[in-house]
Amino acid sequence: MTVLSPVLDHIDKHLDASLERLFSLLRIPSISTDPAYAADCRKAAEWLASDLRTVGFDAGVRATSGHPMVVAHHPGRSPDSPHVLFYGHYDVQPVDPVDVWETAPFAPGIKEIEPGRKVITGRGSSDDKGQLMLFVEACRAWKAEHGALPCRVTILFEGEEESGSPSLKPFLEANRDELKADFALVCDTGMFDRQTPSICASLRGLVGEEVVIRAASRDLHSGMYGGPAANPIRILSKILADIHDENGQVTVPGFYDGVDETPSQVLQSWETLGTDAETFLGPIGLSIPAGEKGRSVLEMVWARPTAEFNGITGGYTGTGFKTVIAAEASAKLSFRLVHRQNPDKIREAFRRFVRDRLPADCSVEFHPHGGSPAVQLPYDAPFLTKARQALSDEWAKPAVTTGGGGSIPIVGDFRTFLGMESLLVGFALADDRIHSPNEKYDLNSFHKGQRSWARILDALSR
Amino acid sequence: MTVLSPVLDHIDKHLDASLERLFSLLRIPSISTDPAYAADCRKAAEWLASDLRTVGFDAGVRATSGHPMVVAHHPGRSPDSPHVLFYGHYDVQPVDPVDVWETAPFAPGIKEIEPGRKVITGRGSSDDKGQLMLFVEACRAWKAEHGALPCRVTILFEGEEESGSPSLKPFLEANRDELKADFALVCDTGMFDRQTPSICASLRGLVGEEVVIRAASRDLHSGMYGGPAANPIRILSKILADIHDENGQVTVPGFYDGVDETPSQVLQSWETLGTDAETFLGPIGLSIPAGEKGRSVLEMVWARPTAEFNGITGGYTGTGFKTVIAAEASAKLSFRLVHRQNPDKIREAFRRFVRDRLPADCSVEFHPHGGSPAVQLPYDAPFLTKARQALSDEWAKPAVTTGGGGSIPIVGDFRTFLGMESLLVGFALADDRIHSPNEKYDLNSFHKGQRSWARILDALSR
Repeated sequence: MTVLSPVLDHIDKHLDASLERLFSLLRIPSISTDPAYAADCRKAAEWLASDLRTVGFDAGVRATSGHPMVVAHHPGRSPDSPHVLFYGHYDVQPVDPVDVWETAPFAPGIKEIEPGRKVITGRGSSDDKGQLMLFVEACRAWKAEHGALPCRVTILFEGEEESGSPSLKPFLEANRDELKADFALVCDTGMFDRQTPSICASLRGLVGEEVVIRAASRDLHSGMYGGPAANPIRILSKILADIHDENGQVTVPGFYDGVDETPSQVLQSWETLGTDAETFLGPIGLSIPAGEKGRSVLEMVWARPTAEFNGITGGYTGTGFKTVIAAEASAKLSFRLVHRQNPDKIREAFRRFVRDRLPADCSVEFHPHGGSPAVQLPYDAPFLTKARQALSDEWAKPAVTTGGGGSIPIVGDFRTFLGMESLLVGFALADDRIHSPNEKYDLNSFHKGQRSWARILDALSR
Repeated sequence: MTVLSPVLDHIDKHLDASLERLFSLLRIPSISTDPAYAADCRKAAEWLASDLRTVGFDAGVRATSGHPMVVAHHPGRSPDSPHVLFYGHYDVQPVDPVDVWETAPFAPGIKEIEPGRKVITGRGSSDDKGQLMLFVEACRAWKAEHGALPCRVTILFEGEEESGSPSLKPFLEANRDELKADFALVCDTGMFDRQTPSICASLRGLVGEEVVIRAASRDLHSGMYGGPAANPIRILSKILADIHDENGQVTVPGFYDGVDETPSQVLQSWETLGTDAETFLGPIGLSIPAGEKGRSVLEMVWARPTAEFNGITGGYTGTGFKTVIAAEASAKLSFRLVHRQNPDKIREAFRRFVRDRLPADCSVEFHPHGGSPAVQLPYDAPFLTKARQALSDEWAKPAVTTGGGGSIPIVGDFRTFLGMESLLVGFALADDRIHSPNEKYDLNSFHKGQRSWARILDALSR
């Protein structure tokens, strides 16, 4: 009989009550992007603060220039318990088109979508009210059974995640001392599949760049000037074509500085997941991986940098034909970064790469579109190892350490403003239809997710 | 005392009267594209037929489904005189914006634009009423002095050249026997410069092609799929970049089949013209020829084929940034052809070139946008040699045989429908502002142009 057993039993016994609490929260249409729902956003924040107080948190609703934050504190079992900051968001996406919903978006319920598979329906059931309530319920069970939490816990729920989080950075800066913890727990991610929990240990960074190539001082007739006159589409195509070599590697000098090889045991664990080119690319109508040769599709997305062309335009693009040589052509590119790649250095290296290939009588203009470094936890970081074991104890299959192909801004913000890393754990599934009509959350995620967090809190405290 | 001398004298003596006749024609606002001027187009046609009758032509106005044609016939000095078809057009471009004109567009006059350089002002003064009246006046002088023309002459003036010539092909087909001559004289071109007359002996052909590359079945998030997913902009850029090698040559297999080297004496005559990269490219803000290495800019435009990219589009092209991997990307290309290059074969070779470079899980769609072979007179064709000598006798500098970078559809039509080649001679200058406000025609072109045609008619009859 461990300290954990009664906590897990408590969760099992009180599942219906925890579901009722989630339903209460889901009934509040806290759509942050629509000013008509501002009062509902506040209502959701107040509901949460009030509920957290029932768990013993010192909880409050804190004004911002937009929707309020919920901040709550709970001491740990002992003064030297680790201190975690749990982050989630109570706002939800709009529900248009409403007539596509099979059940009303703010009238949550339970539905059996296939034999033995029940789901919670409603906007926010997965993103992110369902996910954040898991943690609250795990704390409630700990508190009920032991009168204390195994870790010191600070909670931050924001209400603007679905509308760009304009108040978040100022709030972090202004409340640095209050919010700073040993590390953050972020619950906005998903499971690898229905049996396999996952921890996201890396997020790719990004460098966005727009390049405009200019040649002649005006558009030219391709009969009168075709041949002698420089064609900016040709110059741009050549530059873009030069960016990848025949093995799919990026040729910009210095691009791979700061990129590590993924540890072989991590690569091996990814291989066991059964995701290959066919399963990954099949659903989008493709079959041949376009990334670096000799690497798996999961490694390409989770641990390798890319250069992608997101847009290109030049010359005549309307219906029909025009024999024009354009005066300019432009492209939007993005580089996804991993490990210690430096966004500023990569931007500069790319610009040099372009200038080196530019005919002397042409010109180039660059427009930066954001830059952020990658996030990479050490695969053997203790808090990651502990959480992975806790998840593996709960689920049918061992937890896998994955990567995220895109960025999650809050993780960078916690690093920048609070100097702490984030542990990304969530129980959403790929078919949860977040941001779409008929959002759902598996009842199994809701139940075993609570148990998972109860286990993680225990593991982190040891 | 040759037969030519009195003809040239006649032209000199009656220059004012010939100018008055041109002014009468210029006063008629025969804008073909605007239905409001349909009656004026007919009026211009009738004016011309009537004027041609005063020269002894059997002339008539012939209805079409659009604006009428003027067709006129005059026998030659003897039954075995060569038979030429002279082509011009009496319609003009619109005059907007009218407030930019320094003199009213349909109130022709004489203006001194620099000391000793007088010009005829007005819409159509150069394109093409001024040019076509040169030939009529040359015929008038021959007739007045000798009672006959040295060649048998058929005249065809159309009234839809500035609006796509919709009636021309049907008219040529329906009147093949009447219009067929030994060769055509086309007066829609210009001089190389103010001292140097020119004959255009070649026109480049064209293959227009649109290529659409498709990869994933929908647009993708570049974070989630960047790396493994094929990016159609990358594929398209690579294909376009492959089309030219480092020497500016087109790499599509078989592309240069049917391309001849220009005779060295022709290249030498072009070298004497003083047009280099600086003079050709300087006015458009460029300085480095982008065509095949080792060839002059004039050769590039007049005698070499090209592959040009006229338009490209794919992904997000609006303001700001979007981290998307597009489902498709497309480009519009055109190939300028010379000599005996075959448009159909080049289109097929290009399509094969693209398919050879296409990943197996992507698809491509092609849209043809027209194709026409090049026109190339033998540089030593007798009628070309004779006309060149006649022009050289008239002007300060010897006539030069040039090429045209673009196409002139009538030349292909005469070849296709009437089986005859065209001699392209004109006296327009680069600063005539055709199609623009303040169109003009040098008085010197008008005077010496008449004399030039009188000489050419004489030369061709020998």
